[in-house]
Amino acid sequence: MNAPRMRIAGRGELLLRLEAAGHVIVDPEDAELIINPQGPVRAGQVVGSTQAITLGDLDEYDTTMRFVLSELTLNVFALTASDEVTATVAELLVNETGGRVVQVPDSQRERLLLGQQIAAYSQVVAQEANALLTEALGNPDLAQDVMEEATGLLAPPANVQQVQRAFRSIQSPERKRLYVELTRRSAELFRNREIELWAMKVQGE
Amino acid sequence: MNAPRMRIAGRGELLLRLEAAGHVIVDPEDAELIINPQGPVRAGQVVGSTQAITLGDLDEYDTTMRFVLSELTLNVFALTASDEVTATVAELLVNETGGRVVQVPDSQRERLLLGQQIAAYSQVVAQEANALLTEALGNPDLAQDVMEEATGLLAPPANVQQVQRAFRSIQSPERKRLYVELTRRSAELFRNREIELWAMKVQGE
Repeated sequence: MNAPRMRIAGRGELLLRLEAAGHVIVDPEDAELIINPQGPVRAGQVVGSTQAITLGDLDEYDTTMRFVLSELTLNVFALTASDEVTATVAELLVNETGGRVVQVPDSQRERLLLGQQIAAYSQVVAQEANALLTEALGNPDLAQDVMEEATGLLAPPANVQQVQRAFRSIQSPERKRLYVELTRRSAELFRNREIELWAMKVQGE
Repeated sequence: MNAPRMRIAGRGELLLRLEAAGHVIVDPEDAELIINPQGPVRAGQVVGSTQAITLGDLDEYDTTMRFVLSELTLNVFALTASDEVTATVAELLVNETGGRVVQVPDSQRERLLLGQQIAAYSQVVAQEANALLTEALGNPDLAQDVMEEATGLLAPPANVQQVQRAFRSIQSPERKRLYVELTRRSAELFRNREIELWAMKVQGE
């Protein structure tokens, strides 16, 4: 027995994957499901988006059956749907492409996006640290060891003297700025008022 | 045959470890080596520091035989010494306590400190991301998977709309500030002028 084939329109990678899984690509007016639509969607059609962040972003479409989907890890997707039927349809489709879904409430989707962005930024910071350590130690493997030693450890900022000194040793104004802000945030989290004030003073200059 | 015993004065963990390894703790005036001295050091004595950053920080002492030592990873220490004999003495002593040393030029020590601080800060950022992801997904293990997916990947910042939206979704002013700075630095690295300008504008407000 074959799984039921849907009539799908739209664009994007999910569409291509669903076509590869045997679904039928049709014009938008004939579609049961439109993914990332470029035109109107009418009542009775399902609209799905891999670009929108929340269901509210799909308010312009004249249908109540909506879902948004975003990648969490390889082939794992955060799914938010307007109702249970739409959620089931979306989940079945993702499963057919070899993926799986995790349901996320609409109210959490902006937080999820923010968390993913900040996770990516933590890598930007790690990259800066790695570049400095590799240059200072002349040994990328050892630099990597030092990075790994720090992983998962929340260390408080050093004392003001050390922070000031590290700050002064930085030549690039961009890196100086980042350093001060990270120092300030770290000091806030560790309630080190002295370093926080130092950072605020530098930022005010 | 026993290794030669040194007469050592000073304070700190290294001193205690050296005592445990069989060296003799004496008054500073009788010492061959003084670690983290609190008083004067005269010519002919070796001065070592686990607190100073560079050899120049030991300029106040009347001896040319100096070394500084800082921890890189568990039992691995960055060593900088004024001369080869002092370096050898320091290395032998560290080895006796079960550690090993990596020689670092004096000119690189501030960069090393900075790199270690920024490595620690990258964990502060990762921690913020992890907290957001855990809250959004309601699942610490999945949040951890998303964090690991980001590890080692330098992803460019999203588009201005996504960045703006994530920014507006943040309630805490402290986290807002960190977010903008990280976005700006990321945009600089990826040469995304539009996002850079957005961040500069927000920071100027």
